[in-house]
Amino acid sequence: MLTRRKMMVNGAAAALALVTEEARAQGLHHRLICLDTHLDTPASLARPGWNIMQRHSGDLTQVDVPRMRQGGLDGGFWAIYTPQGPLTPKGMMAARDAALLRAAEIREMVAADPDTFELALVAEDAGRIAAKGKIIVYQSIENAYPLGEDVSRLRSFYALGVRMVGPVHFKVNQFGDSATDKPHWGGLSPAGRKLVALAGDLGVVLDASHSADSVFDDLIEQSRAPIMCSHSGCRAVHNHPRNLDDDRIKKLAAMGGTIQINSYNDYLIAVPPNPERAKLAGPLYARLENLSGMTPAEAAATVRQTAAAIRALDVKYPQPRAGFEDFMRHVTHALDLVGPDHVGVGCDWDGGGGVQGMEDVASLPRITERLVKLGYTQAQLANFWGGNALRVLKAAHKARKAA
Amino acid sequence: MLTRRKMMVNGAAAALALVTEEARAQGLHHRLICLDTHLDTPASLARPGWNIMQRHSGDLTQVDVPRMRQGGLDGGFWAIYTPQGPLTPKGMMAARDAALLRAAEIREMVAADPDTFELALVAEDAGRIAAKGKIIVYQSIENAYPLGEDVSRLRSFYALGVRMVGPVHFKVNQFGDSATDKPHWGGLSPAGRKLVALAGDLGVVLDASHSADSVFDDLIEQSRAPIMCSHSGCRAVHNHPRNLDDDRIKKLAAMGGTIQINSYNDYLIAVPPNPERAKLAGPLYARLENLSGMTPAEAAATVRQTAAAIRALDVKYPQPRAGFEDFMRHVTHALDLVGPDHVGVGCDWDGGGGVQGMEDVASLPRITERLVKLGYTQAQLANFWGGNALRVLKAAHKARKAA
Repeated sequence: MLTRRKMMVNGAAAALALVTEEARAQGLHHRLICLDTHLDTPASLARPGWNIMQRHSGDLTQVDVPRMRQGGLDGGFWAIYTPQGPLTPKGMMAARDAALLRAAEIREMVAADPDTFELALVAEDAGRIAAKGKIIVYQSIENAYPLGEDVSRLRSFYALGVRMVGPVHFKVNQFGDSATDKPHWGGLSPAGRKLVALAGDLGVVLDASHSADSVFDDLIEQSRAPIMCSHSGCRAVHNHPRNLDDDRIKKLAAMGGTIQINSYNDYLIAVPPNPERAKLAGPLYARLENLSGMTPAEAAATVRQTAAAIRALDVKYPQPRAGFEDFMRHVTHALDLVGPDHVGVGCDWDGGGGVQGMEDVASLPRITERLVKLGYTQAQLANFWGGNALRVLKAAHKARKAA
Repeated sequence: MLTRRKMMVNGAAAALALVTEEARAQGLHHRLICLDTHLDTPASLARPGWNIMQRHSGDLTQVDVPRMRQGGLDGGFWAIYTPQGPLTPKGMMAARDAALLRAAEIREMVAADPDTFELALVAEDAGRIAAKGKIIVYQSIENAYPLGEDVSRLRSFYALGVRMVGPVHFKVNQFGDSATDKPHWGGLSPAGRKLVALAGDLGVVLDASHSADSVFDDLIEQSRAPIMCSHSGCRAVHNHPRNLDDDRIKKLAAMGGTIQINSYNDYLIAVPPNPERAKLAGPLYARLENLSGMTPAEAAATVRQTAAAIRALDVKYPQPRAGFEDFMRHVTHALDLVGPDHVGVGCDWDGGGGVQGMEDVASLPRITERLVKLGYTQAQLANFWGGNALRVLKAAHKARKAA
């Protein structure tokens, strides 16, 4: 039988143990090399006056150096994202030019602060760069639309440092079907098959996020190396075409690949369609992509007004907001299904990601805390946070055709 | 009759007048916006460990920030130069990828030191940037070979900031004939005519340096705006195909264009062919283009060895070396022929330029001193040193097709 005093002592000890456990998990998190395999942050670089070295709030961004440091995020794949445009020569040319400029902007970010950033090209670079306390900058292509009808353009992006390519985005394009559009090709197109072959030759990782199931299957079959889903969830947790069903997650794992869990609201939980809201929200988000040519003051004002308009929209058309537990349900489902060597993190930061309780990269240590509590070991967490993605990158590099 | 004392006083006064005149010319030079329209310096950026912010000597470079400051060079057109390779899909692809990377490297140079450099896109940028004491970075393409069979690639380079393009280099390529190769097309090729049309649409200046006379004539005829010879000399001074004859210089001036005088030894004076030397020199200079992948120490050692080998070659196979007077003969001939509104400077620094007495950009004030002595006014020198090139750029921009 416990005396009142003993109970108090035990309570304090338990609280202390909790604090200690949390601190230990935090410490572990900051020791690991933590990568996110889908950072849409390069879009922020095109905002006039926006400086990644400064901490931001209220400007709808989620990644900058102070928040990366706080959240123990050591880097990842910085995406050259292109919205799907018309499948015309003109549309493809404009996309090509914008994507090349975006690649140059990523390199300029690194060049501007070489004590903070370093370009990474092979898997071994990550540890070397992290050991210097610098941020790891791999580059990836989200939507191969800018390659136009000339798959060889992937070589130009490779020369600029790109090491991962996802064939499609929201819509069908010249390379294959999208998870979120009516099927047209029934998988990869003939050009898509060429893209897969060239990525294999170069040692560029294939990214199946946004691909239709049919394209996923083609990628698994045709890739000469393991592939990645850089930002995807589990269909067993929430039935959305952007998520992977269990069979496909198992196939991905069986070939040595990895699913990097997304934190994009509408893929985590059921959100009833709201066409009225969508109609109003589209142009607001598009505004954020069209700030170039403005002065820094004009850009900042536009961002503030847009953020306010989006908040007003959330009030007028409230919609379910996923929380940290919703995100973790996808993480733990994948971990339970295929184990910690085939799961990681690709939260779609600055591309629509983030949940209540994990609003930006500063909150990432929460994931480690939870996984420590669930019994995952340091070695397992090292793979989850970076090792798996780097293994896939290394395998692609190894399987490449000698130049 | 002069006493000895009076003679001494007069001598001192004359000497003082000379010193004052020199100082005045120097002061004027440093006040003017001085541009060189053909800087091959971006090649230096690819040397591992090479830092443009430091002063260099003995490493075969001619341009860095300390020497630009000393020589009052405010910037110019930084060339994306591509050696002519095979006219095959593979050769063109490799050239495309290397040229895009070179453009990114120029932008990285600017991003790395934004207090020193600024990208310039339109003529008005030059004054604005110079007013801040920064170096003006226009970009140009020397040899359009990297555009391959797809002229629209010029749009990608335009997006990255390129505002001048020269169709050819030492050899015939897919766009036309070279000044220094057997004629193949008899002028511009069909692809070359497309290139001219697109450059006109975009407002990109056409650069006729390295073009065969036939291509020069086609450019004059087909360009919708005045053109430039970014680094060329006068055939009347030295009869070399890389130089322009008087009629063509007059045509260039009549359309509002400008010839920017080169300081490349073999185009300034007669140099007897020496195949033995050429055979040995080729691989030495090629070595300097292949330093990437080396450590900074390895690169520096390779440069030192190469420089020593070139000096040894100069001893074993001595050849005539042009001096400052030879360079000035081309300058003054052009000035006498078409006046100071159609002549400027494009010395081919870091691309083979430089003469005895003007070995690098630090010596540029000598040109102004001489031209002041010849009676050119401040306004004329302002045009010579920058105004003419900017006028051509402005005219091309104005004549472009509205997007």
